[in-house]
Amino acid sequence: MSPKIKIVGVGLIGTSLGLALARRDTTASLSDHSKANLRLAIEYGAGIESTDEPDLVIVCVPPDLTAKVVAEQLSKHKNAVVTDVASVKVSIADEVKLLAGSDSSRYVGSHPMAGRETGGPKGARADLFFARPWVITPSETNDDSQLALVTEFALQLDALPVVISAQEHDRSVALVSHLPQLVSSALAARLASGSTADLNLAGQGLRDTTRIAASDPDLWLQILSQNSAAIGPLLLEFSKDINTLVESIQDAGKAGALAAIHSVLSAGNKGVSSIPGKHGGKYLEYKIVTALIDDSPGALASLLTFVGEIGVNLEDINLEHSPGAPIGLVEMQVLPAVHEKLMGQLVDNGWRLA
Amino acid sequence: MSPKIKIVGVGLIGTSLGLALARRDTTASLSDHSKANLRLAIEYGAGIESTDEPDLVIVCVPPDLTAKVVAEQLSKHKNAVVTDVASVKVSIADEVKLLAGSDSSRYVGSHPMAGRETGGPKGARADLFFARPWVITPSETNDDSQLALVTEFALQLDALPVVISAQEHDRSVALVSHLPQLVSSALAARLASGSTADLNLAGQGLRDTTRIAASDPDLWLQILSQNSAAIGPLLLEFSKDINTLVESIQDAGKAGALAAIHSVLSAGNKGVSSIPGKHGGKYLEYKIVTALIDDSPGALASLLTFVGEIGVNLEDINLEHSPGAPIGLVEMQVLPAVHEKLMGQLVDNGWRLA
Repeated sequence: MSPKIKIVGVGLIGTSLGLALARRDTTASLSDHSKANLRLAIEYGAGIESTDEPDLVIVCVPPDLTAKVVAEQLSKHKNAVVTDVASVKVSIADEVKLLAGSDSSRYVGSHPMAGRETGGPKGARADLFFARPWVITPSETNDDSQLALVTEFALQLDALPVVISAQEHDRSVALVSHLPQLVSSALAARLASGSTADLNLAGQGLRDTTRIAASDPDLWLQILSQNSAAIGPLLLEFSKDINTLVESIQDAGKAGALAAIHSVLSAGNKGVSSIPGKHGGKYLEYKIVTALIDDSPGALASLLTFVGEIGVNLEDINLEHSPGAPIGLVEMQVLPAVHEKLMGQLVDNGWRLA
Repeated sequence: MSPKIKIVGVGLIGTSLGLALARRDTTASLSDHSKANLRLAIEYGAGIESTDEPDLVIVCVPPDLTAKVVAEQLSKHKNAVVTDVASVKVSIADEVKLLAGSDSSRYVGSHPMAGRETGGPKGARADLFFARPWVITPSETNDDSQLALVTEFALQLDALPVVISAQEHDRSVALVSHLPQLVSSALAARLASGSTADLNLAGQGLRDTTRIAASDPDLWLQILSQNSAAIGPLLLEFSKDINTLVESIQDAGKAGALAAIHSVLSAGNKGVSSIPGKHGGKYLEYKIVTALIDDSPGALASLLTFVGEIGVNLEDINLEHSPGAPIGLVEMQVLPAVHEKLMGQLVDNGWRLA
């Protein structure tokens, strides 16, 4: 029998969870102190109101309320495992222990690496967790069956469970999420000094680097203050690089200054290349084959039909063409083992490679 | 009669210009000191080799060579207007004046606000300039007919001509392009301190904020050093905010520190909202349809065969799937006019949409 799920807090994450479960014919029990949000989430099809005893409770409230609500749910549902979705894990686990005492052995920390800069139930989407890491941070008092319950739940949402300690989690997200948020916000803050004429020249680079600066300041203040110990040293190192750049840009006529700027730019290249492809670090070694096709409906399908017929699976594909341009470029990423075969068969059968 | 166009330098921008002209049945004359690049650009359909006297020469070489090549072209083609595409304008205009003397009255500065982090002719696309600002920075020695020639050229590429002074240009791009580049590079440089486990938690936020950090350090060093006077004060202000954040994160328990962090986050919100929409809202954007497919050879081909059969042309396509995940997401970008049709036909024929 599938476990009974209760979702507490139906904002962006809670409503998305309910929608994702509904796709798998699982009806979650929903609760929220906002009647308006609850009604909206139920109308969306994210679940129902129910008094059934849950097997698993997911607390999806803001980080500063998470520990308190987790403790309440542990006390209310004495046989349930309770998890949460907050972006920080150490401070919440500590607070839950304080508030819930021995009940805290039924708390398992979670953090789905998924979100959007648009908050609230209206931004919810059933595929929010698809193929995204779902970090699970068990404590030493958790047992295997509790961990299995949360892992199965993540798999049901098509998320990828990743089990690490709360400490490891907080250090990792400080680097890959909290530092970028602060930097993006500080960069976007500079735009206040710009005129409309300046901003009319904005390109994709500015839009991408500042997109997450549109995130909710109140929510982020909670996250950042709860993980300040891990963020501090990273931000300090970043500030040192920036201060060096300030001096180097002022001295840009001098060779030493240029070398310092070049070194940051090169380190940036290296840093970007260390981010795994969308699909995780294991597959970084994809090989790329680029073919030229006519820009017409069916041309790409014909290429991919051929690739399918020779039994080659594409790991990723990128199409580059322009409306009206006579040809398009198809960048196909494949496992190294089939790279030679794909190239050879394409050439032998008259496809043009770039 | 339409003006004869010569493109000098067929990297990303030069080749893209040629492709964009070809769409309008204009054949550019191409030249490049790299025979391999030239051959590739001609094969792509970006133009031909020709000895015809040009009316307009577009110099598309790296910034540190631009003034020299502009002066050469002014001397070689005594009746032509010569423009360029470099990301800095004041220093190049000054150098052209020095090198070309009175010939420099036929030089009109240009800067198309378009590019990609992937350089070279292989990254070229005919729609690179579509709806993007094309900055024109005339000098006091230019006459109306010269300005009109460059403006008409930009319009032919579907770009949006923006006429400002070289000084205004350099100040604007320092804010909307050069500062973001430095910040993104410095942020990505921090990833060197991360483990594979850290980076496996990377989400779209990190990818977006660091995307442009993959750009060519040599090219950017030229741009940054030539515009250091405008970048310096902006970077200094940014560094002050970062240094404040360093202190505030260290003191995150105190109310004053939290207020300082909140203030940067809020200013970031405001900054992002001041960026005009992509294309300045004047142009319709592509619509996205996301379909789910099995992760097996032929599944994508079968989807695209169907799309081709119903006569829908894809403007862009993105495949997202994860190792071991049972399904992949295919993000298809189409013109708004066919969006409804594609969605409807897919659903009616049993395809799953996300």
